[in-house]
Amino acid sequence: MKKYVFGVDVGGTTVKMGLFDMNANVLEKWEIPSVTANGGERVLPDIADSINKKMYELEIDKEEVAGVGIGVPGPVDANGTVFKTANLGWDTVFNIPEEFKKHLDLPVMAGNDANVAALGEMWQGGGKGYKDLVVVTLGTGVGGGIICNGQMVTGANGAGGEIGHIHVEDNETEECGCHNIGCLEQYSSATGIARLARKRLEKDNEDSVLRDRDVTAKAVWDAVKYGDKVAIQVAEQFGEYLGKGLAAIAGVVNPEVFVIGGGVSKAGEVLFEYIKPYYMQYAFRGCRDAKFALAKLGNDAGIFGAAKLILDMQ
Amino acid sequence: MKKYVFGVDVGGTTVKMGLFDMNANVLEKWEIPSVTANGGERVLPDIADSINKKMYELEIDKEEVAGVGIGVPGPVDANGTVFKTANLGWDTVFNIPEEFKKHLDLPVMAGNDANVAALGEMWQGGGKGYKDLVVVTLGTGVGGGIICNGQMVTGANGAGGEIGHIHVEDNETEECGCHNIGCLEQYSSATGIARLARKRLEKDNEDSVLRDRDVTAKAVWDAVKYGDKVAIQVAEQFGEYLGKGLAAIAGVVNPEVFVIGGGVSKAGEVLFEYIKPYYMQYAFRGCRDAKFALAKLGNDAGIFGAAKLILDMQ
Repeated sequence: MKKYVFGVDVGGTTVKMGLFDMNANVLEKWEIPSVTANGGERVLPDIADSINKKMYELEIDKEEVAGVGIGVPGPVDANGTVFKTANLGWDTVFNIPEEFKKHLDLPVMAGNDANVAALGEMWQGGGKGYKDLVVVTLGTGVGGGIICNGQMVTGANGAGGEIGHIHVEDNETEECGCHNIGCLEQYSSATGIARLARKRLEKDNEDSVLRDRDVTAKAVWDAVKYGDKVAIQVAEQFGEYLGKGLAAIAGVVNPEVFVIGGGVSKAGEVLFEYIKPYYMQYAFRGCRDAKFALAKLGNDAGIFGAAKLILDMQ
Repeated sequence: MKKYVFGVDVGGTTVKMGLFDMNANVLEKWEIPSVTANGGERVLPDIADSINKKMYELEIDKEEVAGVGIGVPGPVDANGTVFKTANLGWDTVFNIPEEFKKHLDLPVMAGNDANVAALGEMWQGGGKGYKDLVVVTLGTGVGGGIICNGQMVTGANGAGGEIGHIHVEDNETEECGCHNIGCLEQYSSATGIARLARKRLEKDNEDSVLRDRDVTAKAVWDAVKYGDKVAIQVAEQFGEYLGKGLAAIAGVVNPEVFVIGGGVSKAGEVLFEYIKPYYMQYAFRGCRDAKFALAKLGNDAGIFGAAKLILDMQ
């Protein structure tokens, strides 16, 4: 009789871990450091050790554990094969479940962290109750996780949901981190919003609370709420780029809901006022009734989604 | 013991039908007219009658039939519910399998015709051997069918794969049939290619074999093969718009292969020379190794895909 699932979210500095019962309740949450030295050779053994220790502590028998779900910051295909992940020092292509089982023999499923987090938001977060959703993470970059009919879209090389690099501007002159030009991420990430704001401030001398202070995405959204005209113009630009990008995504997968997460989403529902009108303008009419919701699980989305990978196998 | 499957592709003027064995061999193909009068009330009963007659003719027992797959030209969700289809006169929302079973009690699955055709191309056509593919139909319009991990992406309202209306040009002045502006379909459909050519010819007096004749997409591609400079410029424009659109799609679903079908695809692999360089320019690097292939099943893709819907249930 299976009673427990482990959900693991591997990041570049820490590994978040969660123990769940079969009804989606988190029983314990803890973290261990990600040791990325020597090609990241300790990452999986350290996770296995930590799970083993937790099972011993709580007197959990191996037979009671349905499995271990693992999300990692890199491209992972539908079989759990990872294609190099600079963030963890992994510079070879290998199968995560096979490798993990050498250290701890439990059923293992692995996925890309953004895709896994999307699964978490569908299961217990902002996308609860939906089967067709797009989770958009507006952080330092723009990430995405696509769920179609309840299933993660991993894509051929685990690059499904790499929506930050959809082209949305022909007239850009600066390069994106990916070396392309005019990527969604250049306008709609936290960094992108700050960049739009700095460029707007340089354009003229219009009065703004954003002048003479550190221009961050948070500062921009605080200023929008305060009614600052310059900040509102920046929000409109952000909204047009993101609305246009989400409309393109809708033309591919026609989601019921867009779930917006990441640091920028802390601004709250005010974001939707700027995204939705442009989404409606650019989207095919059959896709215009898509809803917008805020992500709810924050940094726990990964462990939830990882646990869900295992529960979906049952 | 199941021995047979019927695949049905419903069009605005004819219904194509196929009888398959369980190993994907077509045993018979035939057509009946689509009677769209009176709200299309005869469409499903006529199909049921025709299948019944065929079973009688060939002495096939109902117990030997695995089911009937049906593709229709309109949005269909994952349960087979269709949301109005002007082409067939259907102006209500109803469940195709439930309705069909009133006339012939066999297992039924239904889907959108473009999605179903994509499934056919994956199964026995240009996408054979792949599980993550995007089928792009360049006809009067631009249609699409998305397959992720072997499954059709229907989307929330059956509008998955409506890629013809992805926005690719900010500076367009003419409206698309969908009333948006700058849709992929305005440049990459047969109609779109002819439009680009006419606009290019009007711009100046440069010599071209396209002058003083009926400017169709076929004429443009024939002229490209002949080495006509004006036609080649049009092909470059076509390629840039389509390459940009396909790159956006790749950022969502990261396919292994793009399968290009529809009337325009009769031009052959020369199309890829104009699409690929722009695809490579705009696509995220993790998606750049996608292959390009021509669709192979032509007008039979629909009946193949419809049969596959049923075989996937077995």
